Amino acid sequence: MGLKIVRYKKDGDLRWGVLSGEQILDVENDSGTLAEFLKEGVDQARATLDEPPSDTVDLKEAVLASPVTRPANIVCQGANYSSHRQESGMTADRPEFNLIFGKADSALCSHDSDVIRPAGVKLLDYEIELGLIIGNDISGPVDVTNENLHHHVAGLVIMNDISARDVQLPEGQWLRGKSYRTFAPAGPFLYILDEDEYPKIHDLELNLWVNDELRQSANTNQLLFKPEETLTELSRVMDFSPGDVLLTGTPGGVAMNLSKADLEAATKITSPLSGKVEGFLDAQTDNTDYLKDGDVIRASIKSTDASIDLGEQKNKVVAQK
Amino acid sequence: MGLKIVRYKKDGDLRWGVLSGEQILDVENDSGTLAEFLKEGVDQARATLDEPPSDTVDLKEAVLASPVTRPANIVCQGANYSSHRQESGMTADRPEFNLIFGKADSALCSHDSDVIRPAGVKLLDYEIELGLIIGNDISGPVDVTNENLHHHVAGLVIMNDISARDVQLPEGQWLRGKSYRTFAPAGPFLYILDEDEYPKIHDLELNLWVNDELRQSANTNQLLFKPEETLTELSRVMDFSPGDVLLTGTPGGVAMNLSKADLEAATKITSPLSGKVEGFLDAQTDNTDYLKDGDVIRASIKSTDASIDLGEQKNKVVAQK
Repeated sequence: MGLKIVRYKKDGDLRWGVLSGEQILDVENDSGTLAEFLKEGVDQARATLDEPPSDTVDLKEAVLASPVTRPANIVCQGANYSSHRQESGMTADRPEFNLIFGKADSALCSHDSDVIRPAGVKLLDYEIELGLIIGNDISGPVDVTNENLHHHVAGLVIMNDISARDVQLPEGQWLRGKSYRTFAPAGPFLYILDEDEYPKIHDLELNLWVNDELRQSANTNQLLFKPEETLTELSRVMDFSPGDVLLTGTPGGVAMNLSKADLEAATKITSPLSGKVEGFLDAQTDNTDYLKDGDVIRASIKSTDASIDLGEQKNKVVAQK
Repeated sequence: MGLKIVRYKKDGDLRWGVLSGEQILDVENDSGTLAEFLKEGVDQARATLDEPPSDTVDLKEAVLASPVTRPANIVCQGANYSSHRQESGMTADRPEFNLIFGKADSALCSHDSDVIRPAGVKLLDYEIELGLIIGNDISGPVDVTNENLHHHVAGLVIMNDISARDVQLPEGQWLRGKSYRTFAPAGPFLYILDEDEYPKIHDLELNLWVNDELRQSANTNQLLFKPEETLTELSRVMDFSPGDVLLTGTPGGVAMNLSKADLEAATKITSPLSGKVEGFLDAQTDNTDYLKDGDVIRASIKSTDASIDLGEQKNKVVAQK
């Protein structure tokens, strides 16, 4: 069975812990970053489970931080589920290659952090995504396969790619609209996969609720570009380091719902920005699914056989003060 | 007068040095990253100049690395000179806010590194840019002004935002097309500004040549969004850390030259990718300004009064092996 690794507060400091049931066992590892922790921390966590310390912390009472630490490259696959492509005004088919974009690591926050709606943002949206934690350096072209995926991916984490649609789409480049602080809840924990569990990456169920209404429900078997082919493709472009995250895209069910014409109007590069924003707000004016202050988002990811469970996120939307 | 800081090879290791004329003086600082170096390195470099060591290295014989080190967030302003906006098919006017995008830090390379044209890339382009090196953490909204800019920006560096146009434009998101390895020559050195030199940021001359033909020639007084207002704006979105870089955009004179209709056709989000690429290649078929294997790019930035001189880049284009 895999390991559930948490970053938790103990005596005022952030520490690494491993879950044993609902108890956090402190791991003898002082690493300040996930990259550093991954060097020896996984073995140390296993040793901790073998010889548990006497004092443990109840998970329910613990204060957790994002298990993904900074600095981290957060590389994201866009439009990687047919259901999300269609609701966004695109064709359902798999495109010729991955659409990729970045997200600032200062957006990272804990699995239960408030999500802050920036002043002026009207169309705030959620996107549940499976995050793959990179385990080893990728510094040139590699052929990643299901057989060697365990060498490249250390584990899994729930992420929410919170998006300000009224910024993201009209601006064209998605970096700003997806990078505001608190726009990347991560956790509750990092699931370190056992080697024999890797095939289950292709059979994980993603569910997201807003105020207990199920909005997104999908399975990673619907991913258009799979983790192994995506890493193969991106290794031809850029490096990845341990602790970096690949977000694999969100399925259908987000608040945004666009016709092809809406999408074209909102993203036409030569149109003045204010006109595009106004038109986009008009097109979405009857859409009540966008996140409102006070809304509570919950997100979970687990394998269909329930042997892998990435836990649950719970984030409340609050207005920027 | 400011300091010229280099990252250079000495006895097989990379070291920090400070320039005295054409001589590199080794700085007693073992930092592996620019962020770390900036803590004490600037004072140590001044002390080194005051009491120079006896053995120095001739700049002409030294092997330099990028003074910008990894990890670094490379945040880029797009379309920030009217002359470049127009040649790209956009209106000349300053838009409502900065268009920002990211560039992977694995694209960083030295000022004299070969620029590798990835297999299949046909429309390789250059973009000289002034890079601002962040000097202190920005972790929330700040009001950056010309009076306090020295607190936020430590220094300046020449950067070239090499771009694969046939990837960048049709894909829509610019990250991949601008992030291939060697797509970010940086240096030769980092210029640490004296406090009284900051006003000259607004009066720097940028020049770029391809095979000794002057292609880009501009002055930072033409920047549509100035450094202080850009940092003010972006501090409302994301964090910056010491050693991060803000690329301020490129002026007119790049190889790419598009009509409004060309730009719209190449970037229409709902058009199939292959059709967009073909159409874009067709539109640029008579344009012989794109970089060819063997071309040599040179780039320099200096203040009009010549008191600030960021040196010269010289990069040869080679095909991927």
